[in-house]
Amino acid sequence: MSQNFDVVVIGGGPGGYIAAIRAAQLGFKVACAESNAYDDPKGEPRLGGTCLNVGCIPSKALLATSEEYENIAHHVSDHGITVKDVSVDVKKVIARKDDIVTKMTGGIQFLFRKNKITLLRGHASFAGKGADGYQVKIDGKDAGTVTAKNVIIATGSKARHLPGMPVDNELICDNEGALKFGSTPKKLGVIGAGVIGLELGSVWRRLGAEVTILEALPGFLAACDEGVAKEAQKLFTKQGLKINLGVKIGDVKATKKGVTVAYTDNAGAAQTLECDRLIVSVGRVPNTDGLNLEAIGLKTDERGFIAIDDHTCATAAPGVYAIGDVVRGPMLAHKAEDEGVLVAEVIAGQKPHIDYNCIPWVIYTSPEIAWVGKTEQQLKAEGRAYKPGQFPFAANGRALGMGAADGFVKVLADAQTDEILGVHIVGNAASDLIAEAAVAMEFKAAAEDIGRVCHPHPSLSEVVREAALATDKRALNM
Amino acid sequence: MSQNFDVVVIGGGPGGYIAAIRAAQLGFKVACAESNAYDDPKGEPRLGGTCLNVGCIPSKALLATSEEYENIAHHVSDHGITVKDVSVDVKKVIARKDDIVTKMTGGIQFLFRKNKITLLRGHASFAGKGADGYQVKIDGKDAGTVTAKNVIIATGSKARHLPGMPVDNELICDNEGALKFGSTPKKLGVIGAGVIGLELGSVWRRLGAEVTILEALPGFLAACDEGVAKEAQKLFTKQGLKINLGVKIGDVKATKKGVTVAYTDNAGAAQTLECDRLIVSVGRVPNTDGLNLEAIGLKTDERGFIAIDDHTCATAAPGVYAIGDVVRGPMLAHKAEDEGVLVAEVIAGQKPHIDYNCIPWVIYTSPEIAWVGKTEQQLKAEGRAYKPGQFPFAANGRALGMGAADGFVKVLADAQTDEILGVHIVGNAASDLIAEAAVAMEFKAAAEDIGRVCHPHPSLSEVVREAALATDKRALNM
Repeated sequence: MSQNFDVVVIGGGPGGYIAAIRAAQLGFKVACAESNAYDDPKGEPRLGGTCLNVGCIPSKALLATSEEYENIAHHVSDHGITVKDVSVDVKKVIARKDDIVTKMTGGIQFLFRKNKITLLRGHASFAGKGADGYQVKIDGKDAGTVTAKNVIIATGSKARHLPGMPVDNELICDNEGALKFGSTPKKLGVIGAGVIGLELGSVWRRLGAEVTILEALPGFLAACDEGVAKEAQKLFTKQGLKINLGVKIGDVKATKKGVTVAYTDNAGAAQTLECDRLIVSVGRVPNTDGLNLEAIGLKTDERGFIAIDDHTCATAAPGVYAIGDVVRGPMLAHKAEDEGVLVAEVIAGQKPHIDYNCIPWVIYTSPEIAWVGKTEQQLKAEGRAYKPGQFPFAANGRALGMGAADGFVKVLADAQTDEILGVHIVGNAASDLIAEAAVAMEFKAAAEDIGRVCHPHPSLSEVVREAALATDKRALNM
Repeated sequence: MSQNFDVVVIGGGPGGYIAAIRAAQLGFKVACAESNAYDDPKGEPRLGGTCLNVGCIPSKALLATSEEYENIAHHVSDHGITVKDVSVDVKKVIARKDDIVTKMTGGIQFLFRKNKITLLRGHASFAGKGADGYQVKIDGKDAGTVTAKNVIIATGSKARHLPGMPVDNELICDNEGALKFGSTPKKLGVIGAGVIGLELGSVWRRLGAEVTILEALPGFLAACDEGVAKEAQKLFTKQGLKINLGVKIGDVKATKKGVTVAYTDNAGAAQTLECDRLIVSVGRVPNTDGLNLEAIGLKTDERGFIAIDDHTCATAAPGVYAIGDVVRGPMLAHKAEDEGVLVAEVIAGQKPHIDYNCIPWVIYTSPEIAWVGKTEQQLKAEGRAYKPGQFPFAANGRALGMGAADGFVKVLADAQTDEILGVHIVGNAASDLIAEAAVAMEFKAAAEDIGRVCHPHPSLSEVVREAALATDKRALNM
């Protein structure tokens, strides 16, 4: 493979493949390099990155299955439905998840062909710069060197591993191993009560595991609005997750039978957690090793991130951009995607813009947590006067009908201007309900604006409207 | 009961009770008259109207139960979940539904007490006008005459019954009877393929009935966008609903055993439908009998509707307003609610406004159908140049994970200005996804605006964004 392109994208995850498609839509000759085969039976690199292969998508497939199972086992009797002998075949669960992933990664290959994007199968690194642009060396099935005036680094992130806790993805697992257990562990330990620990811990709890989560921080879900975090902790605990905060992890020992985790609890007492498997979910680190950034005069910061400017994702090397998990900002697939679109448009001479304050966050627990904008604690820290408005799903007819009455929506509006500053949801379908809030915030909507938009009755979205009205103490059904 | 109020609301349904609450919030002394006890064991009038007692809310409770049941019986095996002997106790199903209704109607009573609204238990009619305002006569538990300068007529609607088809709500049912069957009929007939016929027909089909729908019109769901209607007809037929369009209903005979419906099919052939029960859902008529409108110089039109002005819901009698199903516009609970808020604010001297084009419509089938704004056929009839953009749920990772890949989102944007003119959804959670579209349309958003708003990945809301991008032929994942 030796060819010149307008744009070479390094990494075929959600940031990279979307950047490649958008660049192709804009008329550029585009290539995208991907080396990770995950579990592909032929060892072919798979597009879609962590998100599609071992992250967002497979976890949502398991989430759906585990929710179905828990619902049948524990809740459908509320509806007058009786079942006998409900059982789950974890191998089939994993196979269904794999089928969805395979279908979607194949879908991206189709999109590459449709958009005439060259897939470079192999590991890409910088080799230097010449008259044709940057030289990108490919090691792998499509070995060679390609050149491009523009390169987009979208190599994503990988699970952070801890010293003394060797991840084998059998007994001690990161996100990859936790998505392919062959059976439900009887006792599952989780280190880290972040997004991944809570999502996958919940999946396996619903499928029957006894789950204990150990978290070093003293507070639960510190990034969330405090009221939401408190409600979520209460709900997850009631569901049976054992959440231990403020612990100090000691020795972790893997044996043939399982894993033993020594830790000190938040009262200072020595404790031991015995479990069959352990998930380590203590954050993610950027995948910037092996890019040979030095060849083009770039280097990463001490944490491995690549510095870019605030508005165009441009690095210090002209024509080289970096997006997604390798740069500042939240490690969210949709943030990476939007940066991918932005960079393609910047290369095309357009003037795109991302308002990072309007990027929604989602935690796919049950109920889901989603938010956009500022939390109450952030507004307090900024000294900004705001009006909170909160409305519970328990007062919504659709939620009652669905048996999904847990949680609430909270809207935070500026005390003077009524501008919506943040919307926080813990409840069923929060990941979809937050879209309305993101649209509203992009339009700098006032809380009253949402209060005046007709929402369908009965629907969960009415709770968003009522919370907006509640900022002015005029919710109608509360 | 003899008292003077600032505002008397006639009817405690979603239009009326919301009008009463909003008026009370604005400082008025408010009463609300309600006479319908539905099945209240003590014969006490129940607040919430058709919607809460025998409409939207109970049907959504049954919908949830019937979806759970069908899902367990037919779909969870896709997930690797096995169950034996799934059965449903229809009496418990109905009891759960009744509990939800009772809880919510009690909730409105609580809101009335909280807002110091006087509940007038009895049938209200106009008795005349004097120095204290309009005289409203109450017949029932709170018999007497009250007076008010402002009266809001919010008496709603009732099922249209057909000559020769006496509804007994045992064998031949309208919406009220169809919500309280004691068991699942083996064969269920439905006359009318409108919203109610499709929703309740689907509920009982999922619970095991063989359902045949007879519709006089030649087209399916004529109010919907044609593409959506076509997709919905295909999906519902695949689910097992037998939908016969363009029929002419003949004799309907009820016996001890069931009902026989003679009809002529769309090919002109004589047919007979034998069923255990029959639902007649052929539209609704305004509840304006017995209001004695003549006493204040008002009358209804030939169809029973009350004429109002376009902007304030004012009738020809100064201070008398009419809202919801008794006036022009769609018979939708949320339209009535918004008119209730509007009238209370008009009485308070505010200048509220409803953009009827931005009122969303929902049909709670499975998948749901929801839309806001214009359909393709309306735009064609208007001669307005538009760009359609469509994206299927089958290309969305969350939808695949949930096993909810049917349907699509269609966005229609002005060909010149890119303004969103209509959004049409057939798919899971359409009733919540449409809220984003309603917000966008109230802000006169362009399709590009929605395309530029970051939507969470993975979520169903991404399909809305992709459909918006598709209007400009730049969907990213298609």
